[in-house]
Amino acid sequence: MRLLLISNSTNPGEPYLDYPKNEIKNFLGEAPVTALFIPYAAVTFSFDEYTSKVEERFSEIGHHVVGIHTAADPLKAIETASAIVVGGGNTWQLVRMMHDLELMPAIRRKVIAGIPYIGWSAGSNVACPSLRTTNDMPIVDPKGFDCMGLVPFQINPHYLDAHPEGHGGETREQRIEEFICANRNVYVVGLRESTILKYENGNLNLIGPRPARIFKSKHQPIELTSSDNFNFLME
Amino acid sequence: MRLLLISNSTNPGEPYLDYPKNEIKNFLGEAPVTALFIPYAAVTFSFDEYTSKVEERFSEIGHHVVGIHTAADPLKAIETASAIVVGGGNTWQLVRMMHDLELMPAIRRKVIAGIPYIGWSAGSNVACPSLRTTNDMPIVDPKGFDCMGLVPFQINPHYLDAHPEGHGGETREQRIEEFICANRNVYVVGLRESTILKYENGNLNLIGPRPARIFKSKHQPIELTSSDNFNFLME
Repeated sequence: MRLLLISNSTNPGEPYLDYPKNEIKNFLGEAPVTALFIPYAAVTFSFDEYTSKVEERFSEIGHHVVGIHTAADPLKAIETASAIVVGGGNTWQLVRMMHDLELMPAIRRKVIAGIPYIGWSAGSNVACPSLRTTNDMPIVDPKGFDCMGLVPFQINPHYLDAHPEGHGGETREQRIEEFICANRNVYVVGLRESTILKYENGNLNLIGPRPARIFKSKHQPIELTSSDNFNFLME
Repeated sequence: MRLLLISNSTNPGEPYLDYPKNEIKNFLGEAPVTALFIPYAAVTFSFDEYTSKVEERFSEIGHHVVGIHTAADPLKAIETASAIVVGGGNTWQLVRMMHDLELMPAIRRKVIAGIPYIGWSAGSNVACPSLRTTNDMPIVDPKGFDCMGLVPFQINPHYLDAHPEGHGGETREQRIEEFICANRNVYVVGLRESTILKYENGNLNLIGPRPARIFKSKHQPIELTSSDNFNFLME
């Protein structure tokens, strides 16, 4: 199985999907790949617009995407895909559409069989057992919280330490503490901006300049960097 | 119907439930009231602890709370309650427990019949038609997104304008824009910290030093202050 699970598409002030593009390029390899793109997390702009935006960056690195929404038979498009790319946006809408179209088991089978999977933000969330560590507003009922479980732990994308000034609500860390209190056997990886989890050759590693913060019930959170081993999370 | 829907319990740096206490006092009136308190949004601390913390503040203003978790029959406790208070915490756990115990229709009946309802944060969210404008992490499946619908619009508590520095995710405004895109006939009130919506005598008003930001599909967001009329939201 090969996974590239990216926290955020874009760093503030940078072009869309710019910082992770070289990792995507290396991950997909030298030979040009046309990946199947799942744009269903887009809410306020069209799936066509989303696919074009992603294609612009992919074509820069010698690869391409085609939107699943243009396929006559989405399940068949998955069956014949050489890579799957799931973009960010609103996790709830993404999961709802993936459930309605029954995409999750099909993608799971293909990825377990070996085709590369790339996700960012919501696209990293749906690689987890459920969407229960998303930050997004639940604008629609997803008709079930379960996701693909390509990894056995939960990712919190866009993990941030900053607490907006004057905000009287819980911090991100407090929210994850609630999660592990309600879900005692699940690890949560707080994946900070500009960082990526990569799984290949049976190894899980962190890429990027910031450590990841790992949470589990009854343990102090720990900070692991790109030189640490993350394989315990896959057990 | 009488509602006091509070954005946040506590302003940063202040004691718990301090800033809204005089509004709560006025809302409940001169005669001492012992309100039924719903502490089920607490995740990382006990319902007893939560109830004590709220009782401390209520007793300062001549009123009291008793936790519903101590009642042998929660539905009977609602039937005989003279006021209902729903505290903040994690909306998802709150809604799950309210659904499991079938509290929502019972509270709704009593509040429509005239007993005062006070909520803050998650407690304001559950007064809305659904939980779909919560900011909280979905740590448990609530077994249904529907809430009490005491008001016909959605509240986004802790509405904030600030975007944490370095954060590559969507702003709160962008999230609400997604909501109104997916839910075209629903108003959303971005309720900023230190502000309260009060409904009584058939009038909905804002209390507090900051305007509320009102969102609806295909309209520019508007800012309304404590001197504006909010009654259109109840139609």
